[in-house]
Amino acid sequence: MKLSSALSMLDAALAEAKRLELQVCVTILDAAAWPMAFARMEGVPLGVIDVSRKKARTAILFHMDSADFAVLGRPDGEAYTLENTNDGLTSFGGGILLRNTDGTVLGSIGVSGAATPDDIAIARVAARTLADI
Amino acid sequence: MKLSSALSMLDAALAEAKRLELQVCVTILDAAAWPMAFARMEGVPLGVIDVSRKKARTAILFHMDSADFAVLGRPDGEAYTLENTNDGLTSFGGGILLRNTDGTVLGSIGVSGAATPDDIAIARVAARTLADI
Amino acid sequence: MKLSSALSMLDAALAEAKRLELQVCVTILDAAAWPMAFARMEGVPLGVIDVSRKKARTAILFHMDSADFAVLGRPDGEAYTLENTNDGLTSFGGGILLRNTDGTVLGSIGVSGAATPDDIAIARVAARTLADI
Amino acid sequence: MKLSSALSMLDAALAEAKRLELQVCVTILDAAAWPMAFARMEGVPLGVIDVSRKKARTAILFHMDSADFAVLGRPDGEAYTLENTNDGLTSFGGGILLRNTDGTVLGSIGVSGAATPDDIAIARVAARTLADI
Repeated sequence: MKLSSALSMLDAALAEAKRLELQVCVTILDAAAWPMAFARMEGVPLGVIDVSRKKARTAILFHMDSADFAVLGRPDGEAYTLENTNDGLTSFGGGILLRNTDGTVLGSIGVSGAATPDDIAIARVAARTLADI
Repeated sequence: MKLSSALSMLDAALAEAKRLELQVCVTILDAAAWPMAFARMEGVPLGVIDVSRKKARTAILFHMDSADFAVLGRPDGEAYTLENTNDGLTSFGGGILLRNTDGTVLGSIGVSGAATPDDIAIARVAARTLADI
Repeated sequence: MKLSSALSMLDAALAEAKRLELQVCVTILDAAAWPMAFARMEGVPLGVIDVSRKKARTAILFHMDSADFAVLGRPDGEAYTLENTNDGLTSFGGGILLRNTDGTVLGSIGVSGAATPDDIAIARVAARTLADI
Repeated sequence: MKLSSALSMLDAALAEAKRLELQVCVTILDAAAWPMAFARMEGVPLGVIDVSRKKARTAILFHMDSADFAVLGRPDGEAYTLENTNDGLTSFGGGILLRNTDGTVLGSIGVSGAATPDDIAIARVAARTLADI
């Protein structure tokens, strides 16, 4: 993933959050889970910074959206405690895996700060800009 | 446990995973929970590295397979939160305790990356090479 | 500091690095040392991510540019080992303290990836956009 | 870098150490600093495990051998405290950057446990197997 693509996603996420009158943090990671871009909107509680990071981290480390990961890692899931690995993962939505049109994993985006369905919606709007390129 | 034994186990685990057309990470720890050998197959999501380590760690730290640990360390288990000790343990299978023929604890092996029953099967094939020596 | 100001600084730093045909990471922190914005250009070695963060952190935590901090926090400086506090600080240039026209501390910017004088120059170009607002 | 290449390097390093009647740990990381393979010989003090890891980490995170990094990160180097970033780096030899014949960065190898010149020599013997492939 190029930095220009990451910055376009960042812009799209921030614009969508603004349109919905919500405040979020956005973290974009590359395919090896290293940070590419990050932004925090005014008014977001500080703990949300790490939540956006962990959502993105969960998605890229296990090649699935964090909402899907949530099914596995819970007490009644087939891999209870999986959420305790890798310095703690995130068992709720807002972390989205980014793939190329040919299926190659490109990285992930994590959005946090609003209600979970809104976080997911914002992340999806951002991810779509990647497909447009 | 000798390094040669650990490397034989590693080879056996990788060969069995390849035979089953699966991709896994394999961690082998000594009786004091320190790493002896590790390998990661291509195509395994990066989060799995730490899962294989934690499975092996769970087995050696409590002298039981991680599948047995899973019965204890979960919300309805008799030692709920035990899984949160030691920087986080693993309440599902794939970590196997390694003993000598006389019962002496030698170390542990952790396999992760496939479905849990496959991870367990691969770890068992590897552990068997140890008994053969 | 507003997010719009942080993003303008980020853009200015990336544009200046591009103009100089250099690759850098840029971290912008608020007055309480929490991250506001970050970007990593392609081709930057991964260790540089944390260096840009630590440069910005050094500047905001001690209210001085990291180049000035370097005089204090080194074996022959008057506060040797100060660089070991706060999980490790950075005794070389590229972290710049950001102040309002009235002297109020707004945050800091850390640039890393090029030679130290270039990192400093890029950080200064970025910081100037803040004064223009 | 393929796992087969990493395992060949591991074997070569262990064989060379054995030939020299030395005991070492060997860590092999991919281009994004994630572990690919590891082995520890009998008789190596346990602290050496992390040293081999940090040597390899230093090489890949800054795209240079850890012996070259040592010149930068020392008190009289141009980037004093650089060794404090990324959870602590290693300012002495034994971590070697691995490149493809076309210069592409493939990963790194870290060898530790013997005297530094021997660690370097063993790492170089191992790295050469990569070029042979």
